[in-house]
Amino acid sequence: MSETEIIVEPNRQDIIHKHTFDAPRDLVFRAITEPELVPQWWGPRDLSTEVDVMDARTGGRWRFINRDADGNVYAFSGVFHEVTASERVVQTFEFEGMPGHVALETLTLEEADGKTTYVARTLFQSVEDRDGAVQSGMTEGAQDTMDRLSEVIEKLR
Amino acid sequence: MSETEIIVEPNRQDIIHKHTFDAPRDLVFRAITEPELVPQWWGPRDLSTEVDVMDARTGGRWRFINRDADGNVYAFSGVFHEVTASERVVQTFEFEGMPGHVALETLTLEEADGKTTYVARTLFQSVEDRDGAVQSGMTEGAQDTMDRLSEVIEKLR
Repeated sequence: MSETEIIVEPNRQDIIHKHTFDAPRDLVFRAITEPELVPQWWGPRDLSTEVDVMDARTGGRWRFINRDADGNVYAFSGVFHEVTASERVVQTFEFEGMPGHVALETLTLEEADGKTTYVARTLFQSVEDRDGAVQSGMTEGAQDTMDRLSEVIEKLR
Repeated sequence: MSETEIIVEPNRQDIIHKHTFDAPRDLVFRAITEPELVPQWWGPRDLSTEVDVMDARTGGRWRFINRDADGNVYAFSGVFHEVTASERVVQTFEFEGMPGHVALETLTLEEADGKTTYVARTLFQSVEDRDGAVQSGMTEGAQDTMDRLSEVIEKLR
């Protein structure tokens, strides 16, 4: 598995995750946007993910539910501002357990020599929101998510 | 007309507009979210505004078209992440003439003593995008918009 590069600069309001997948970008895009594949990679390995809603097109909505072994439930939701096949997804993101803190996620896929560079920029409403997300383990969960996404993409090849 | 306070702090990725309207917040919310009222206040006075799409509810889309006296057309669009009546609107914003630069707007309304404080925070994907919006005249247009919105609200009373 390749490393995930995580960029958290002081005084900025965003977090950037970069990862290179050994696959063409149409496969990466499929893994990210097909609702039946999302439970196989979204979030950390010790939580299950249910896709409640996922209409992955411009103007569509999404809502995912995480469950842990004790039955605790964590729901996340947002809208797709833009979905451009194999290139770009722009969506909002909110943890329903902490309503009123909304992030804007921009995901781009670039292909070269059969490999795809995935860049996800998560933009927070304040530096405090951004730092809170880092402290809650977002960046640690990200490596898990990227590793799981690699596995899903490998199976699609 | 009351002044609009505009906050643009160095090295931040957002612009904040604050304005106090002499009206209860349900009237301010109506003026902002009713499609037939939008052409009366949205944007600077020297442009006309056509509402192409406006489904002002959580998960809905919006698209507005500005036209100048020479027939030039400027379209803007986004999705509503959240619309909570009289309290809060969270939406994405993109100028279609410069695609790929998306902002997240959070608008809150708070009422006290019959007056409503409107706070709009526009969050950009980079400091450069934010500074570009300021240079393109966004903050000057904002006073016009707030003055026009005051006039619409006055007529609703």
